[in-house]
Amino acid sequence: MRPSQRRPDEARPIRFTRGFTRHAEGSVLVEFGDTRVLCTASVEPRVPPFLKGKGQGWITAEYGMLPRSTGERMPREAARGKQGGRTLEIQRLIGRALRAAVDLNAIGERTITLDCDVLQADGGTRTAAITGAWVALREAIDRLLAAGELTVDPIETQIAAVSVGVYQGVPVLDLDYAEDSSAETDMNLVMDGEGRFIEVQGTAEGHPFTRAELDALLELGAAGIRSIQAAQRAALEV
Amino acid sequence: MRPSQRRPDEARPIRFTRGFTRHAEGSVLVEFGDTRVLCTASVEPRVPPFLKGKGQGWITAEYGMLPRSTGERMPREAARGKQGGRTLEIQRLIGRALRAAVDLNAIGERTITLDCDVLQADGGTRTAAITGAWVALREAIDRLLAAGELTVDPIETQIAAVSVGVYQGVPVLDLDYAEDSSAETDMNLVMDGEGRFIEVQGTAEGHPFTRAELDALLELGAAGIRSIQAAQRAALEV
Amino acid sequence: MRPSQRRPDEARPIRFTRGFTRHAEGSVLVEFGDTRVLCTASVEPRVPPFLKGKGQGWITAEYGMLPRSTGERMPREAARGKQGGRTLEIQRLIGRALRAAVDLNAIGERTITLDCDVLQADGGTRTAAITGAWVALREAIDRLLAAGELTVDPIETQIAAVSVGVYQGVPVLDLDYAEDSSAETDMNLVMDGEGRFIEVQGTAEGHPFTRAELDALLELGAAGIRSIQAAQRAALEV
Amino acid sequence: MRPSQRRPDEARPIRFTRGFTRHAEGSVLVEFGDTRVLCTASVEPRVPPFLKGKGQGWITAEYGMLPRSTGERMPREAARGKQGGRTLEIQRLIGRALRAAVDLNAIGERTITLDCDVLQADGGTRTAAITGAWVALREAIDRLLAAGELTVDPIETQIAAVSVGVYQGVPVLDLDYAEDSSAETDMNLVMDGEGRFIEVQGTAEGHPFTRAELDALLELGAAGIRSIQAAQRAALEV
Amino acid sequence: MRPSQRRPDEARPIRFTRGFTRHAEGSVLVEFGDTRVLCTASVEPRVPPFLKGKGQGWITAEYGMLPRSTGERMPREAARGKQGGRTLEIQRLIGRALRAAVDLNAIGERTITLDCDVLQADGGTRTAAITGAWVALREAIDRLLAAGELTVDPIETQIAAVSVGVYQGVPVLDLDYAEDSSAETDMNLVMDGEGRFIEVQGTAEGHPFTRAELDALLELGAAGIRSIQAAQRAALEV
Amino acid sequence: MRPSQRRPDEARPIRFTRGFTRHAEGSVLVEFGDTRVLCTASVEPRVPPFLKGKGQGWITAEYGMLPRSTGERMPREAARGKQGGRTLEIQRLIGRALRAAVDLNAIGERTITLDCDVLQADGGTRTAAITGAWVALREAIDRLLAAGELTVDPIETQIAAVSVGVYQGVPVLDLDYAEDSSAETDMNLVMDGEGRFIEVQGTAEGHPFTRAELDALLELGAAGIRSIQAAQRAALEV
Repeated sequence: MRPSQRRPDEARPIRFTRGFTRHAEGSVLVEFGDTRVLCTASVEPRVPPFLKGKGQGWITAEYGMLPRSTGERMPREAARGKQGGRTLEIQRLIGRALRAAVDLNAIGERTITLDCDVLQADGGTRTAAITGAWVALREAIDRLLAAGELTVDPIETQIAAVSVGVYQGVPVLDLDYAEDSSAETDMNLVMDGEGRFIEVQGTAEGHPFTRAELDALLELGAAGIRSIQAAQRAALEV
Repeated sequence: MRPSQRRPDEARPIRFTRGFTRHAEGSVLVEFGDTRVLCTASVEPRVPPFLKGKGQGWITAEYGMLPRSTGERMPREAARGKQGGRTLEIQRLIGRALRAAVDLNAIGERTITLDCDVLQADGGTRTAAITGAWVALREAIDRLLAAGELTVDPIETQIAAVSVGVYQGVPVLDLDYAEDSSAETDMNLVMDGEGRFIEVQGTAEGHPFTRAELDALLELGAAGIRSIQAAQRAALEV
Repeated sequence: MRPSQRRPDEARPIRFTRGFTRHAEGSVLVEFGDTRVLCTASVEPRVPPFLKGKGQGWITAEYGMLPRSTGERMPREAARGKQGGRTLEIQRLIGRALRAAVDLNAIGERTITLDCDVLQADGGTRTAAITGAWVALREAIDRLLAAGELTVDPIETQIAAVSVGVYQGVPVLDLDYAEDSSAETDMNLVMDGEGRFIEVQGTAEGHPFTRAELDALLELGAAGIRSIQAAQRAALEV
Repeated sequence: MRPSQRRPDEARPIRFTRGFTRHAEGSVLVEFGDTRVLCTASVEPRVPPFLKGKGQGWITAEYGMLPRSTGERMPREAARGKQGGRTLEIQRLIGRALRAAVDLNAIGERTITLDCDVLQADGGTRTAAITGAWVALREAIDRLLAAGELTVDPIETQIAAVSVGVYQGVPVLDLDYAEDSSAETDMNLVMDGEGRFIEVQGTAEGHPFTRAELDALLELGAAGIRSIQAAQRAALEV
Repeated sequence: MRPSQRRPDEARPIRFTRGFTRHAEGSVLVEFGDTRVLCTASVEPRVPPFLKGKGQGWITAEYGMLPRSTGERMPREAARGKQGGRTLEIQRLIGRALRAAVDLNAIGERTITLDCDVLQADGGTRTAAITGAWVALREAIDRLLAAGELTVDPIETQIAAVSVGVYQGVPVLDLDYAEDSSAETDMNLVMDGEGRFIEVQGTAEGHPFTRAELDALLELGAAGIRSIQAAQRAALEV
Repeated sequence: MRPSQRRPDEARPIRFTRGFTRHAEGSVLVEFGDTRVLCTASVEPRVPPFLKGKGQGWITAEYGMLPRSTGERMPREAARGKQGGRTLEIQRLIGRALRAAVDLNAIGERTITLDCDVLQADGGTRTAAITGAWVALREAIDRLLAAGELTVDPIETQIAAVSVGVYQGVPVLDLDYAEDSSAETDMNLVMDGEGRFIEVQGTAEGHPFTRAELDALLELGAAGIRSIQAAQRAALEV
């Protein structure tokens, strides 16, 4: 029995609030249950030094948690003077995942930065962030297309992510904090619109996992991502 | 004529959303028009080193802006590796203002941290932050009182803040970004529940201001704060 | 009775030693009683990135305290690896105050840096720093005028500063450390040569202050600044 | 055809030089072809603050690359003043992998630090580091057992790692730099002595990968790790 | 001919102003010609962690240059966020030199910090700093002896320093900036009251130096230090 | 009797392993007994900002110790976020010493970086580093000459270094850790191929040293360096 009473293959309610803030070219509040992440897409007319003059663009991400997004207050990274290893790892993951969706040659010499800031955390912040960031990116690209700044859509596929894990011996979908903190195995999956893998990151927390367990988790995640992607599309059609 | 069509002595609509996030002991989203600041109060059972063993508590504040809370994306302070001078100045101001409201001896050996994170900026973020932080602090103290952890209310007065300034030669209340960025004089006022001053910070941006202008601004601000304090009380009565 | 036996409206003896060091374009040791601050003005033929190519100049300030300028040794900020919030706040204030005196378009693409280093502290270091920095700036500009590098005087007004506060219930001028550390209210005033306000920064340390107290402090400060400005002019006439 | 002329399922020659340096409790130079990583295990009689008084130990890892271990010189992280995101990500991975092998309650209040320093890089430094670090850890634990400081072997399983990827459409084992830098998919596998997974980290570099490709990579990696583990055991028997 | 018209074996005028600032236990402005360094000695009743509970004290030094102590303004180290290599090297040298003068067991569990801040630089700041710091240390120890906090004098010898170098082929004493910046060889000597060496630091700037040149420099320096030590004693007798 | 049973004038066995790693233009493992330092020379086609457009090159050095190169593990400088004073001092020394060997005008607008990383420490790491770095530099320059990128040899002399010290009252050559940690006096000498001094750095650790002791140490070191230079030449002839 999951603490939230969900079935093993049941994700939390997923909600997208578009236009959550008004300045960014894309701005989406994504909720996976009680996990809430504000994802903004900012378009800037320049590229990092290593891409100067190559005629292509860049997509990058930054991730942060508000100090009291969690059960106990965490030190503010800006005050500590550096981003922790977990933060860097997650924002590298988000950036890679989103770049996999886009033809960087087709966005011109622009940088699009996805800022994913966790307002409230209840497990699965990185998968919510990737999922919401894709919607914010879609918004920003649509705005560039509408304004005639781009004439060809550079987004090649739809990206979403979900976590899966083994909780009390059972493979479950979309772990919340209560499950995540005691899961034996934790895996984050990022997939594209054609059901192919972008990232597979599995970690044996409690004990190692067999190939059979891995297969079960991959199945569960693939099904979960399909319905998350349907929710993304529905949000964009509104 | 103000860009927002407001009268000179008219503040923006002010709104408090209590319980905006669920983990913190106090959590309030405060809106001064399009300026939105999430204020959380976190209670922790320890004090900074300089207060150890003195039997009193401490109140402190931290301030941050989400990178795309503004019209152009600002670099993330956590990624730059330090908080800027403006950030430090604002969070010192918030902390001082809130400490003025509380009998630190009456909260025991606890630290209450007010985190003020700007989700969307349109001028006046520091005055909104102080105003919202007091409501979050009130929530947190009420929770301690309700739980019997405190028996006497340590809050001695009500704190609110507002900006005033001279815009196109006219003293105006509660400047938004369009006014703030071209104001000749900018002043932030923090006052208590008895109409006394906690902080007066006036800066001549464009040209110096006379004593008469200063007096007009102080009047305007005092009236504005009275109605903001009424809004604070109304929010707490809900 | 003030600890120094001064009358409430009596400033400490103020002294300017011009040419205190020989390399800088302006170099003044300013003393407000036992508070001694070395103010140098350095002229450099370049501007910060945000002003490149705009044909105007920039004035900025940096502030520091020698580790043993105070009663107890303070950690050296260079060794700690960062400037504290108080330091940043003060140097931002000094820079704003001095910029208010100068037509930046009239100094060409130059940066003038005012370094204010406290050799000995006894309260009021920021107001002494602003007051001395204006004299150092005047020296540096005079040198540029004398050398024909400038033909029109870019200094539009005379800047000085002083602190006022409520000590044991009485408004007093130019607080020393003994008064400052136990004052109920502390206010720093920066004014121009025409008696107008550049900065008003009042903080209720012990208890909030009424409008009447504020008015009394403003009167006291305005009178004090007039005599400090006379001392500045006298020093420059030597 | 692979640049190195290897068959798709052929790892590079793997070599362990035990006792490579003399001070550390465990010290192994591990070579995967031209990739050479010095792995040392340091035993210290203390634990991090979060484990104080809990009677258990801790295993952690640090990773670094000598500036000229690579084809072009990289800036030294100590001189830049921080470890990069890739470094932090790798050392977190090494630490997690090694902790999965050990009963932390059985090592007492000790910290064992695995330092993995890349002397020469040719792809696969993180998998070589994990593989070598396990041998260094084994050496350090054997020394504690021999000295009677431990009476029960806390190592519960054997850990090794390898990379697999899709190079020019073909799944290959143990990618070198020439392959790694142009691989379409890159996956790092960490497995235990029973053939179970500790970590699975797959990233689509060029294009997303299908479930069938993923299965092929998992098979290839599992076989590769079996022979790497045989090499580890052989090195320890010498 | 030296730029300053001095004879090769002639030091600059050396002056000590005792009690230059009032808070520190020792406070001396030392001048070697136009080089002016403020040296303060601060006594604190604690020792660094590595000495806790050993019953002995510690002597350490910190060094800094005011930004405009030099011909061109140097960036402020506190603003840059770190002390440069030259600064660290010099303050390590000052600390070692002073520790050589003192029986650390005889000062009890105290730390004495020598802060050497260059107000104006004209070459030889490190040797002036060592020379002045010893006088400030002497003042601080005398105060402890006078107050009965120490009963035995822990200072075992007199420390002074001077630079020597080869300028236009001629060995010269106490180089000023004009000489220092074009010297072929530069050597700093620290000696005790018995004419023995504490530190010898010679660097071939322009071309290597022979043993004969080295011998000449050592002679010149030893004679120079004897007269500097006479000046130190004279200053203390006042 | 020395702990290592060596005669007072006997250096440890010195060994150079050329081509120790394959990417760098010069790569030498130098061993002074159990002290092992990997020295690489990296040639890059650019110069630091202060040399831009002057048509000359630059030589610089960086130094590091692997965390467990020593008897007790030292914190990793990259993880601490800064290089310590000792590290900065040593790498400045190595850089100066190597620049003394080379005509910087003759290497064109190139920077050659000598990275000296201590794999195992047993005293004398800085002198081993200088000695090995010269061989690595020689390799790198020979490669540039062979490739026709340089036509005239810019190396003007041969550089080597050794430590000397007074151990139990006796001057000894090339101190190992056991001697170094209890030596009364420690001196590092850097000399050129003509027997002239590049650097002389002597420090009285335990007690000051007389001129006679200094002379004895200089003799001992000069003889030691002659044989080290013979070993350098022999290594290059292989």
